[in-house]
Amino acid sequence: MPKLYPRNDATNKYQINEVIKKRWSPVAFSSEPIEPDKINSLFEAMRWAPSSRNEQPWRIIYATKGEPKDYERLASLLNEDNGYAKDAYFLGVICALKHHIYKNKPNRTYLYDTGAAAENLFLQAVSMGLAAHEMGGFDQEGVYEKLGIPEDEVYAVAMIAVGYPGDESKLSEELKKKQNKIRERKPIAEIAMRGKWRNSRI
Amino acid sequence: MPKLYPRNDATNKYQINEVIKKRWSPVAFSSEPIEPDKINSLFEAMRWAPSSRNEQPWRIIYATKGEPKDYERLASLLNEDNGYAKDAYFLGVICALKHHIYKNKPNRTYLYDTGAAAENLFLQAVSMGLAAHEMGGFDQEGVYEKLGIPEDEVYAVAMIAVGYPGDESKLSEELKKKQNKIRERKPIAEIAMRGKWRNSRI
Repeated sequence: MPKLYPRNDATNKYQINEVIKKRWSPVAFSSEPIEPDKINSLFEAMRWAPSSRNEQPWRIIYATKGEPKDYERLASLLNEDNGYAKDAYFLGVICALKHHIYKNKPNRTYLYDTGAAAENLFLQAVSMGLAAHEMGGFDQEGVYEKLGIPEDEVYAVAMIAVGYPGDESKLSEELKKKQNKIRERKPIAEIAMRGKWRNSRI
Repeated sequence: MPKLYPRNDATNKYQINEVIKKRWSPVAFSSEPIEPDKINSLFEAMRWAPSSRNEQPWRIIYATKGEPKDYERLASLLNEDNGYAKDAYFLGVICALKHHIYKNKPNRTYLYDTGAAAENLFLQAVSMGLAAHEMGGFDQEGVYEKLGIPEDEVYAVAMIAVGYPGDESKLSEELKKKQNKIRERKPIAEIAMRGKWRNSRI
């Protein structure tokens, strides 16, 4: 597997798959084009996630720097502090269908299933030497009108940036801090509970 | 990577990572114990998923056949047509925290983030030669009281079964059909949209 950056692999205690270990959310992106087949591999990976009734409620609106007008429209949705993402060749908006196609009833797992598909995309990116970063910091209200998304039916969950790793030395001091921040996670004892719930927040 | 079953890899057109290709939802499980380190690797993989503000809203309540009382409690929640899952050594309930720890505001991506963590668990399972199957068919109302889950704070999303692959020849005719069902997915053209939304459901 190609090396993304010199650090920031997960500091796992128990063995995990290399692609899960190497996935993280950098801020240094290159604008170098991503090969079309690799972009299709990102979508292909999304396709094969599991979902309730196999309804595959995930959708993605995307643009690359190869289509500047489309790219600009997506980039204009980003909050100022996610400006680093405008270096990335690929931007996307992860969307999720709120209702089951079957009987049009609310789908209780539409966001959960879409999260699985997005994770597949991120892991596929990593396995091809690409960096990926998802962001909640975008115009969550304006996105519907700007991209023509039917708000009754569809939830725009997150924006994502995907690109080849960029030159870290060119980052601002603030972004360097973000790029080099130690990655932390809750201990297993807090997230996994044997047999019954015990409130881990108290 | 260990071979799980003789078929049912994804029929992808574009190259995808082997672990994504090999993940699917079988119904033939063995009751053979899973090594404790491998169970910890499942939780470890969950830990390293991305999440909004790195809040890691995912939790899992689990039991193995090594703790029959705990296992029975979880197994009793399954709908009848998910009875095959009771062969699996490991059962779990994927839970998600509804509010941000920060200011206790509703977390708009708590289910999305939890879906990513669950997908990490499934892919980690596959990479260790284990089969995994998630299920919405369980007692979605009774689960809170039975497992002591605080319903105001936590959503019980899905149950999962994890185990070594089982003997397919011992499955009922109905389950054989499930196990051998051709896996299908929407075409990329339906899930990925360039630049703007176009309604793919019409």
